[in-house]
Amino acid sequence: MRLGIYGYGNLGRGVECAVRQNPDMELTGIFTRRNPESVKSLTGIPVYPADKIREYRDKIDILIICGGSATDLPVISPELARDFNIIDSFDTHAHIPEHFERVNAAALENNHIALISAGWDPGMFSLNRLYASAILPDGKDYTFWGRGVSQGHSDAIRRIDGVLDARQYTVPVPDALEAVQSGETPELSTRQKHTRECYVVIKDGADQAEIERKIKTMPDYFADYDTTVYFISMEELREKHAGLPHGGTVLRSGATGLNRENRHIISYNLKLDSNPEFTGSVLAAFARALRRMYQRGVTGCKTVFDIAPADLSPLSPEELRAHML
Amino acid sequence: MRLGIYGYGNLGRGVECAVRQNPDMELTGIFTRRNPESVKSLTGIPVYPADKIREYRDKIDILIICGGSATDLPVISPELARDFNIIDSFDTHAHIPEHFERVNAAALENNHIALISAGWDPGMFSLNRLYASAILPDGKDYTFWGRGVSQGHSDAIRRIDGVLDARQYTVPVPDALEAVQSGETPELSTRQKHTRECYVVIKDGADQAEIERKIKTMPDYFADYDTTVYFISMEELREKHAGLPHGGTVLRSGATGLNRENRHIISYNLKLDSNPEFTGSVLAAFARALRRMYQRGVTGCKTVFDIAPADLSPLSPEELRAHML
Repeated sequence: MRLGIYGYGNLGRGVECAVRQNPDMELTGIFTRRNPESVKSLTGIPVYPADKIREYRDKIDILIICGGSATDLPVISPELARDFNIIDSFDTHAHIPEHFERVNAAALENNHIALISAGWDPGMFSLNRLYASAILPDGKDYTFWGRGVSQGHSDAIRRIDGVLDARQYTVPVPDALEAVQSGETPELSTRQKHTRECYVVIKDGADQAEIERKIKTMPDYFADYDTTVYFISMEELREKHAGLPHGGTVLRSGATGLNRENRHIISYNLKLDSNPEFTGSVLAAFARALRRMYQRGVTGCKTVFDIAPADLSPLSPEELRAHML
Repeated sequence: MRLGIYGYGNLGRGVECAVRQNPDMELTGIFTRRNPESVKSLTGIPVYPADKIREYRDKIDILIICGGSATDLPVISPELARDFNIIDSFDTHAHIPEHFERVNAAALENNHIALISAGWDPGMFSLNRLYASAILPDGKDYTFWGRGVSQGHSDAIRRIDGVLDARQYTVPVPDALEAVQSGETPELSTRQKHTRECYVVIKDGADQAEIERKIKTMPDYFADYDTTVYFISMEELREKHAGLPHGGTVLRSGATGLNRENRHIISYNLKLDSNPEFTGSVLAAFARALRRMYQRGVTGCKTVFDIAPADLSPLSPEELRAHML
């Protein structure tokens, strides 16, 4: 199957690496809105200008759109779903329903298939929330993120005057996680679930105390959390905080039995050295499923909830039953 | 939707409890091969003789077959798949392909749908093996079971002369589990992954040393493991080992990146107070999915790999996208 990558940042490179690990896939090209001559792909895949993408309509089975959820994907995904089978990793949870409607309408115009919000959250975490809640209807869900780098929070710090660079780690509160894992079902506030650690490089002479105050009081991003700020040198940032690790845990704690006497805890945990490479790997697997569904005549917008797991695997149904069930 | 339970042991009671937690389900009846007058259901559901089940053909949407995998299900599942939409929890991994073929042929005779091998292993663990291997093709799988009661191993001990009762716990080796969780990918022998703990009640005057020798050298069941045997009184067994807890962890450790430089660990863990009640809860959720697929015209034998997750949930696709994705 022939894939295309639209948008070539960290996630695009993650998809490029993932495709190399799947012998049934190949990349037709990478499409960028930058000057393609200034962009070199990791694996020698040709880089084309984004506005020429429609010339490759017959050479791409599934187009993986690697853009940001704030402004890129709401526009690009519906536009490209008219002419391609697309996948995106739209992750603004509150706006998923409207994004779905727009992509669905666009995909149906020319009988294409689309998948939105694939990745790990939304994505694999969502799947685990669904499975666990269907199995244990009398239960409570918990999602803990981290320890990992939040790019949105790192960006928010970088926008503060006097800041040269920053890396923000989201950290689950160990006591809260352990309480749930041991069978308790506490009500946890935002502050009780996660803390935030910021590693910040500032300009010579910038007001350290004022920058720390601005971070810790920033609404939505930090004000509701216990936040720790460390000022470090650019060298230390580059040396110790170059990666984009992430992960987290989805748990459901539920009761069964005639008198709710038995407790069950389902948990799903990810420990990821590279958030974009893992997300890219999820997108590649779902591209395989989407291609198969399209070949069976399925059209319109889907989510990970609509994909039968067997379609994700390169193995045949017979092999799956014999070796993986 | 109207369900039936065929076979009323621990698992049948687990399904009965699960159905009560799902407002969109009701039980038409419980079918037993014992004298129905000797069987009282937990929740007042009527108990009927197994050989009258075909009289209830139009009153049962999905029949959940709760029998043993050794001798019951290979015969009963195909027989009943001719006249009912059925689900079973067939768990003899090596014989799944032939069981699938038999149930599939039987189900197709009268355009029924069937699902085999649902539960947690096979079942939820299988799903996690599939998702994780599709996402991380360059990786290694590990499945650890326990700490939990293995009914097969407990039964094997009970068959030894002089043994009155026994409970066997399968226990994952902590060092092995931790090594995998920390990113190592060791080759682990059977002995390195699990130990076995046996709590045994013997007859007065029985040869304790000989019974211990017979347990520890029993081929397949114990010979390949480090096994510890504790002789206890019947009172202690009833007091401390009455439950049927189980669980375990499925892990996949894989590498991504241009030079395999980034490691990712996906793990799925179950901690279950009651193995049969949890399995019953899984069966109930899959019964919902199977009913919906049947209503859409799907027939033949399926496995958990073929079920789109959305079909398991009582929520609508719109609700799932808005609240669970």
